[in-house]
Amino acid sequence: MKVVTTIKDMQELILKQKSQGKSIGFVPTMGFLHEGHLTLLNRARKENDIVVLSIFVNPLQFGPKEDYAEYPRDFERDRALAESEKVDFLFYPSVEEMYPTSPSVKVTVQERTDVLCGSSRPGHFDGVATVITKFFNIIMPTRAYFGKKDAQQVAVIEGLISDFNIPVNLVAVDIVRENDGLAKSSRNVNLLPTERKEATVLYQSLQAANAAIDKGERDPIKIIDMICEVIGNESSGVIDYVQIYSYPQLKPLEKLEGTIIIALAVKFTKVRLIDNIITKID
Amino acid sequence: MKVVTTIKDMQELILKQKSQGKSIGFVPTMGFLHEGHLTLLNRARKENDIVVLSIFVNPLQFGPKEDYAEYPRDFERDRALAESEKVDFLFYPSVEEMYPTSPSVKVTVQERTDVLCGSSRPGHFDGVATVITKFFNIIMPTRAYFGKKDAQQVAVIEGLISDFNIPVNLVAVDIVRENDGLAKSSRNVNLLPTERKEATVLYQSLQAANAAIDKGERDPIKIIDMICEVIGNESSGVIDYVQIYSYPQLKPLEKLEGTIIIALAVKFTKVRLIDNIITKID
Repeated sequence: MKVVTTIKDMQELILKQKSQGKSIGFVPTMGFLHEGHLTLLNRARKENDIVVLSIFVNPLQFGPKEDYAEYPRDFERDRALAESEKVDFLFYPSVEEMYPTSPSVKVTVQERTDVLCGSSRPGHFDGVATVITKFFNIIMPTRAYFGKKDAQQVAVIEGLISDFNIPVNLVAVDIVRENDGLAKSSRNVNLLPTERKEATVLYQSLQAANAAIDKGERDPIKIIDMICEVIGNESSGVIDYVQIYSYPQLKPLEKLEGTIIIALAVKFTKVRLIDNIITKID
Repeated sequence: MKVVTTIKDMQELILKQKSQGKSIGFVPTMGFLHEGHLTLLNRARKENDIVVLSIFVNPLQFGPKEDYAEYPRDFERDRALAESEKVDFLFYPSVEEMYPTSPSVKVTVQERTDVLCGSSRPGHFDGVATVITKFFNIIMPTRAYFGKKDAQQVAVIEGLISDFNIPVNLVAVDIVRENDGLAKSSRNVNLLPTERKEATVLYQSLQAANAAIDKGERDPIKIIDMICEVIGNESSGVIDYVQIYSYPQLKPLEKLEGTIIIALAVKFTKVRLIDNIITKID
């Protein structure tokens, strides 16, 4: 595995691989790798000749009151994990390398941002879309891998690729879950022991919603009420939101049809968990 | 020459050429080709294996009060000219093909826009940068050709390429002039006969400015005054602006140094002419 820190070197290495007809799988991350990232790397490894992992904590996507400085970083651990996942190139640029001057252009996301987690993070997805645009031009991937855990990010990047005609295939990878259904997350360790048991209700409530839809329920308000009731009855968590939208457009629905996302966020004592299911209604 | 109207076909044709190691020269236009465009095509033809010309009147870069509907179009004439310049692919998409849905993302230009012609066209360069981003992803050019006549557009696209790390070489082509120095333009035919003679003073004033700088003048205000005086004395044109900035940053200068642009716009009876020189001060 080669660690690459400059854009110029990275582009040259990629162009050399592409000139030999090699396919490029790309997994963008902010580092501090967890099992979700390794699942993406594993999938990329199976489907491409060359695997590129980027580690870059992107200041552009943090709000002024957010935890950019405190965001966890452990490059040596990440490097070892990347090596064990048979990554070919680890792209690890500095902030100065990625943003050498005050940028004259940025990507502005005009849709899909004012719902779910985005409503409380103005400008966040502009920062995500801008850095991903840069990465796509630097890595020129055949396929780019994103986890469905952050379904809104997938929706925004789907829009970015489609609207800008970026020649890359987006691979949205299913949420990895514990045996009891809890979506895996680095943050789960911050659940208190009783909360950890209760937290299984998040996915259970989504499954219950799915079952109700299968039985013919098409009213989003009824589904949302049902989920809130299940979570309220069976956990001490405080619901941040339960929302249903068309996917990937993230538009409100009066009646459930087409592909939809049911997404929720629940606050526990020291941690806020998110989960979602995306389902197609025939 | 092949006329291509869909993005998918265009991308497939380009990928096929690139897989054979061919270089791609790209000339983006809004059609109604004039000598300036032909100069760009000629240069692209000399420097690349494959030449792609796009003709697309981009609604995104026209303001609500601007002349999108009236913008001149003559596809059959353009097609014949492209053929005679040995263009390989003429990319000619419809508005519906380029913008099938209300876009969820756009490029926002944050610098270099509030001066020169940009100050009176809010949003214009966002539209230019967005469509050029799309074209770069569709055509994947090795080199892209722009005329220095529209120096602000070149500056914005230089920022776009640099900030987004787009793997393309920008080739900024010198202004083509008549024998008497007037910058060539389709609009010159709208000058009255006396105005046509007077209009040579635009370039003469820029040359006089250059000579003064060569002799050591470093005060932009003195240079601007000198240009205004020359134009005022020797033509009936009304000065719209005479401005000097750093180039390509387009920042004001207290003292002339580095690479600078001296740009002007002058209104005649039926036509507004622009001209500029870009010069490096040692």
